[in-house]
Amino acid sequence: MRRWNGWGLAAVSYPLPDATAAVLAERIGPGTPPRDASLAEVLSSVPPSRLPPHPLVSTEPEVRLRHARGQSFPDLIVLRSGRVPAFPDGVAFPRDAEEVRALFSYARDAGARLIPYGGGTSVVGHVNVAPGDAPILTVSLERLQQLHSLSAEDRLATFGAGVSGPRLEDALRARGYTLGHFPQSFELSTLGGWIVTRSRGQQSLGYGRIENLFVGGRLESPAGTVVLPSFPASATGPDLREFVLGSEGRMGILTEATVRISPLPEREEFHALFFPDWECARTAVRELVQSGTPLSMLRLSTPQETAINLALSGHPRMVRVLSGSLSLLGVGSDGCMLVLGVSGSRRTVESAQHTAMGLAGRHGGVRVPLLGQKWLKGRFRAPYLRNAAWERGWGVDTVETATSWSNVPRLLAAVEDALRGALVDQGERVLVFTHLSHVYATGSNLYTTFIFRLGKDAEETHARWLALKTAASRAMAAHGGTISHQHGVGTDHRPWLEAEKGALGLSAIRQMLGTFDPSGLLNPGKLV
Amino acid sequence: MRRWNGWGLAAVSYPLPDATAAVLAERIGPGTPPRDASLAEVLSSVPPSRLPPHPLVSTEPEVRLRHARGQSFPDLIVLRSGRVPAFPDGVAFPRDAEEVRALFSYARDAGARLIPYGGGTSVVGHVNVAPGDAPILTVSLERLQQLHSLSAEDRLATFGAGVSGPRLEDALRARGYTLGHFPQSFELSTLGGWIVTRSRGQQSLGYGRIENLFVGGRLESPAGTVVLPSFPASATGPDLREFVLGSEGRMGILTEATVRISPLPEREEFHALFFPDWECARTAVRELVQSGTPLSMLRLSTPQETAINLALSGHPRMVRVLSGSLSLLGVGSDGCMLVLGVSGSRRTVESAQHTAMGLAGRHGGVRVPLLGQKWLKGRFRAPYLRNAAWERGWGVDTVETATSWSNVPRLLAAVEDALRGALVDQGERVLVFTHLSHVYATGSNLYTTFIFRLGKDAEETHARWLALKTAASRAMAAHGGTISHQHGVGTDHRPWLEAEKGALGLSAIRQMLGTFDPSGLLNPGKLV
Repeated sequence: MRRWNGWGLAAVSYPLPDATAAVLAERIGPGTPPRDASLAEVLSSVPPSRLPPHPLVSTEPEVRLRHARGQSFPDLIVLRSGRVPAFPDGVAFPRDAEEVRALFSYARDAGARLIPYGGGTSVVGHVNVAPGDAPILTVSLERLQQLHSLSAEDRLATFGAGVSGPRLEDALRARGYTLGHFPQSFELSTLGGWIVTRSRGQQSLGYGRIENLFVGGRLESPAGTVVLPSFPASATGPDLREFVLGSEGRMGILTEATVRISPLPEREEFHALFFPDWECARTAVRELVQSGTPLSMLRLSTPQETAINLALSGHPRMVRVLSGSLSLLGVGSDGCMLVLGVSGSRRTVESAQHTAMGLAGRHGGVRVPLLGQKWLKGRFRAPYLRNAAWERGWGVDTVETATSWSNVPRLLAAVEDALRGALVDQGERVLVFTHLSHVYATGSNLYTTFIFRLGKDAEETHARWLALKTAASRAMAAHGGTISHQHGVGTDHRPWLEAEKGALGLSAIRQMLGTFDPSGLLNPGKLV
Repeated sequence: MRRWNGWGLAAVSYPLPDATAAVLAERIGPGTPPRDASLAEVLSSVPPSRLPPHPLVSTEPEVRLRHARGQSFPDLIVLRSGRVPAFPDGVAFPRDAEEVRALFSYARDAGARLIPYGGGTSVVGHVNVAPGDAPILTVSLERLQQLHSLSAEDRLATFGAGVSGPRLEDALRARGYTLGHFPQSFELSTLGGWIVTRSRGQQSLGYGRIENLFVGGRLESPAGTVVLPSFPASATGPDLREFVLGSEGRMGILTEATVRISPLPEREEFHALFFPDWECARTAVRELVQSGTPLSMLRLSTPQETAINLALSGHPRMVRVLSGSLSLLGVGSDGCMLVLGVSGSRRTVESAQHTAMGLAGRHGGVRVPLLGQKWLKGRFRAPYLRNAAWERGWGVDTVETATSWSNVPRLLAAVEDALRGALVDQGERVLVFTHLSHVYATGSNLYTTFIFRLGKDAEETHARWLALKTAASRAMAAHGGTISHQHGVGTDHRPWLEAEKGALGLSAIRQMLGTFDPSGLLNPGKLV
């Protein structure tokens, strides 16, 4: 059973070690644990449904609550405080495309709007219900999870688009394959959600971004069915797959998706390396990705993030030993940690590791045993820590962007400075640190975490978060960063979209989407 | 100076060897050289311009003739026969975006339509002028050819979009870089043309398709300027670059394009291998591309193409020696030739060659020295042979498609059979042969050449070509192939587009394009 008011499974929690809490208290001040609303309290606030009965639609208050919000920080605030401004009037669980089409008719007749819902893991408001006059029907795709076909010869597999990460990988692994798409939300997010939000997996350097993995499918739109053939490539004008990618529920409901699969790697390794400073480390990572060495991941922390991660690890003794060893190898307090992944045949892995270690070594990089495996073990754990921090009175959120290599230092400084200074007028300190999680020959993303004290109530906490988010977003727009490299637009990035796309570009996207959903039935208020 | 009525430079010609002509005569019957119209004759048919004078616009008859058509087979027919149905009323040569915008105003005032023109190498009618009431202004981008910037750190270069292949590569080579985009039209085609038609280079396996190389730029549309930022990746909804790719002059005029560049390879090799039969060869090529071995090219001829290429080579004695040697190595009359390219560091090239030769050897592949270099030398020559064949009374054209690996045999048979049988009712034989020129993990393109006898006049020749083209296109649509993998849509593939995109998909593309060009100023009758 999933947690109703935070990330992940209710049975799984990673409490904050006292040593970690002590560090946070020292850096930004002690947290005051907020009083969370109980499930019963929130359920009692769910209003009667405005939808007529339908065999596919549940109007149970708990089902409606559990589909009311995603996993953004504002979502956490409203769920924890129990002040949820609106709930879907019902949640439908269609089993096939025909039932999806039936729901369109039903919604039209009822004057309702639809919100497509995959894993509900959006961190930018994609699945949120806003208060309004029209009834809202959330359409969960969790029953569309079958593996429809797999061709080893064509390296293609077709799934129901509601399949979750683990189910998809289980089905492929049983046949010797993998998709290789592992976003941090992997345990709960879905194939369809990855596609319509342009998600990136942690190993996209090796397996490709979802844009490279999504080769075809079927989409039900209010104006009709769209079939996307799985050609390996085509030159027949604009590619309709690119209309679906990033459509964020405004174009239709993806019911089936065909993806490019890879054989399970013979070997898969994750190594941790430390570099003496940020300049060395960044240059090494840029040269590694530009060299075309077949790696599956490069994830580089700044000196600040490296130090804070070690400090927050909750193992001060181990960290002292590690720091001592690193110091002997020339890596001091400016050290940067890189996690490097490599997957493939034995031969490829050996050769790529050899090349990568050689190049890293020329920039002062030294390998530290075990930490790569430790990263792997905790790869999906970070979102759980948000729950733990909240319960001790601290808020944790992340912002992310991408830019060209030459602009990385400027953008990084701008975003971090904006976040560090955003609560100065309230006398609050903010802990800010960054890593590069997805790198390209031409540039990198920047993934920045910020930790701040919760306010005395939900309003104050939201105001703090909004000040932080706005400061970071403004810095991205002003300093050559995209407003999102991997989280999508939803509601939270929408105000910044026009600066990036231009009024004309945005209008073209609206026109395109409007062809598929002329009466605005789908996901109101999201994306555009 | 370019040839006005056929491919390439007027000073360059590759006459058909007599031995080649003898083979063609034997296979499909002797050709009757047609009477070509002279330049003077055609110029005398150019009507007065309907455009008012403008300092940027030339109305010289020869300039108008030289921009009236592209390089499709129907274009060759009208130019050679001198029966050109329509000419642009003028040709403009803007030097910058401001002049492009000025031309939009001028065209609006004159009630004219604009045809953007890069290298004029389209083989599907992209730049053709159709007869009609509105004056036509062709906008040549040949003056937009500057290298605006190059960042070694970011691996990005920005060019004027009218830059031709050789000029672009010269500019990059002087700085140690390459784009690596070498379509067969390379010598004459342009960066902007590659982008807006979704062109593929011969080495796209290594360097990427133009979709992967085009990272940003500027486009002038009738509704305004579109700036495409060069983010390495973004998740902010549909990507406007994907609207430009394949827009075929209907969205606007690309004035600047930023592309991803690579360092010049330390080494570059092209090898020819022969396989005993098609099944072995196809499996070897599929396994090679699926293995992820870093090759830059895989180009595999069917047994028919292999035999015909050898027979048409005009060197019967050399072919006998080669066939004798191959026969000793187990490659007989069903042999298939593969050209395999590999580029990169010395180490990468050696390692990739080693892997590739090992895998090929397991499928019976044997390497033949020198032929890989011979392919390289003639890599841009094929289009010239069309001139030579025409002059001896034969027509040569190609069709191309792409599909999943498992569907390659069925689609290949369908397209070849359709072409072979298309002129049966006229008692004409057609020589048909195919290679796979671009391969992917999930499938391959099919590139089919057909040779037939010209008719007694332009009408009969056109009717033959149309019967052939229609038969091949119908076979693609009916058997799971895209109507174009690399040539685009233009006018010739337009009737088949709806079958591929669906009525709704096509309507969405029209709506999107209409946002940028609401009054239909640009490239009427093309794409959609």
